[in-house]
Amino acid sequence: MRYKLTLSFDGSAFCGWQMQKNAPSVQGEITRCARELFGDTATVTGASRTDSKVHALGFVCHVDTSKELSESSVVSAFNHLLDPHIAVLSCEEVDDTFHARYSAVSKEYHYVIHNSSVPDPFLKDRAWFYPKKLDDKKMNECARGLVGEHDFFSFMAAGSKITDCVRTIYSAEVVRNGDLVVLKIAGNGFLYNMVRIIAGTLVDIDAGRINKSIDDIILSRSRECAGVTAPAHALYLYRVNY
Amino acid sequence: MRYKLTLSFDGSAFCGWQMQKNAPSVQGEITRCARELFGDTATVTGASRTDSKVHALGFVCHVDTSKELSESSVVSAFNHLLDPHIAVLSCEEVDDTFHARYSAVSKEYHYVIHNSSVPDPFLKDRAWFYPKKLDDKKMNECARGLVGEHDFFSFMAAGSKITDCVRTIYSAEVVRNGDLVVLKIAGNGFLYNMVRIIAGTLVDIDAGRINKSIDDIILSRSRECAGVTAPAHALYLYRVNY
Repeated sequence: MRYKLTLSFDGSAFCGWQMQKNAPSVQGEITRCARELFGDTATVTGASRTDSKVHALGFVCHVDTSKELSESSVVSAFNHLLDPHIAVLSCEEVDDTFHARYSAVSKEYHYVIHNSSVPDPFLKDRAWFYPKKLDDKKMNECARGLVGEHDFFSFMAAGSKITDCVRTIYSAEVVRNGDLVVLKIAGNGFLYNMVRIIAGTLVDIDAGRINKSIDDIILSRSRECAGVTAPAHALYLYRVNY
Repeated sequence: MRYKLTLSFDGSAFCGWQMQKNAPSVQGEITRCARELFGDTATVTGASRTDSKVHALGFVCHVDTSKELSESSVVSAFNHLLDPHIAVLSCEEVDDTFHARYSAVSKEYHYVIHNSSVPDPFLKDRAWFYPKKLDDKKMNECARGLVGEHDFFSFMAAGSKITDCVRTIYSAEVVRNGDLVVLKIAGNGFLYNMVRIIAGTLVDIDAGRINKSIDDIILSRSRECAGVTAPAHALYLYRVNY
């Protein structure tokens, strides 16, 4: 039996998705509950790794088990057993051809900036507090330059061992909702720290700390040309599409 | 010099407003920063006590000091020094006739219920998770019964030593915004646990666990007739009016 689970989690409590020794991980917690529910042979496979402090509103994983339960029982049993920093939003029985990671065709991330002169305690671990007024319209125009198939080497964490940095961005926009400025970006794949570097670059361009266009930064193939890596605690895996 | 400060705080980190030995309080943290900023004689007086875990979106306190600073410097200095679970939203220089507690003419509280079949990790310490569908229209009609000058003994925590339980509620309504059902209530004063008992009673009436009307519960002058004390972590002091 294979179950596709859609999860939401508050990343502040975890070292990320991936199971690690001596640190609480989302995969570790889902695995603990899956084994309590289905027995010791249950295994859990996620759509991607996420970094420490990164949140999810629609993370997907699949659980393999030899025991059958109704989809609604799986949801309520998990939510009963899980650390409350994680919730199972839905469960779907899928066949063995579905794979949380390899069947994914695109992912959407949101990066949330709290753009206000005063901080908000309720956004402390959930948004990047940036007091200087941002021009979201200008940022949105810049973000458009990311759309398409490009070599995103400039937007990858220095030291990453990936060599093929070509990815396709399907959509990228920046919208303002009151004090929140949100980058919404969807693509077929993302390099290590890519969304955080993009968020940092859009802010650095807006602030005048970078005078290159997104096009030029892409063409430079140089991490130096892009902006800062924006903090992890403001990044949300919003959706995985199959 | 007297400064009126308006604060927002995430109550999960504190034992409440009031300073206590060996427990982090909001008053303690504001006092620590006020003394760092203004010197050792600064004192801090709050509009009311709040319980452990209770949040605030517009708490008011006043700070007495012999040193003068511009209002905007006070805001930024506090936000630089404070534990990030607290923010100073605004500062106003006031004269000695203003008193955070005694000058308050009314307070407004919000009580937030997350009414969904699945929990939301981001509301874990910020709303009461209540999975059974609530009839917010019916709750709103019941809430109207609270408006006016009444003896609210039935809605006071058992064991409280207050003897005059007459308070005036200026407005009370229940509104739904998606999965959030919010009780908004304003009055000239509130008894110990009063808003939480009102929230619990509205839910208990909706669920059929209580068959009395709000009128009857008020007239009974019996804590037994009202409902459960809803959890503290979903209560917000929204505003103090002067």
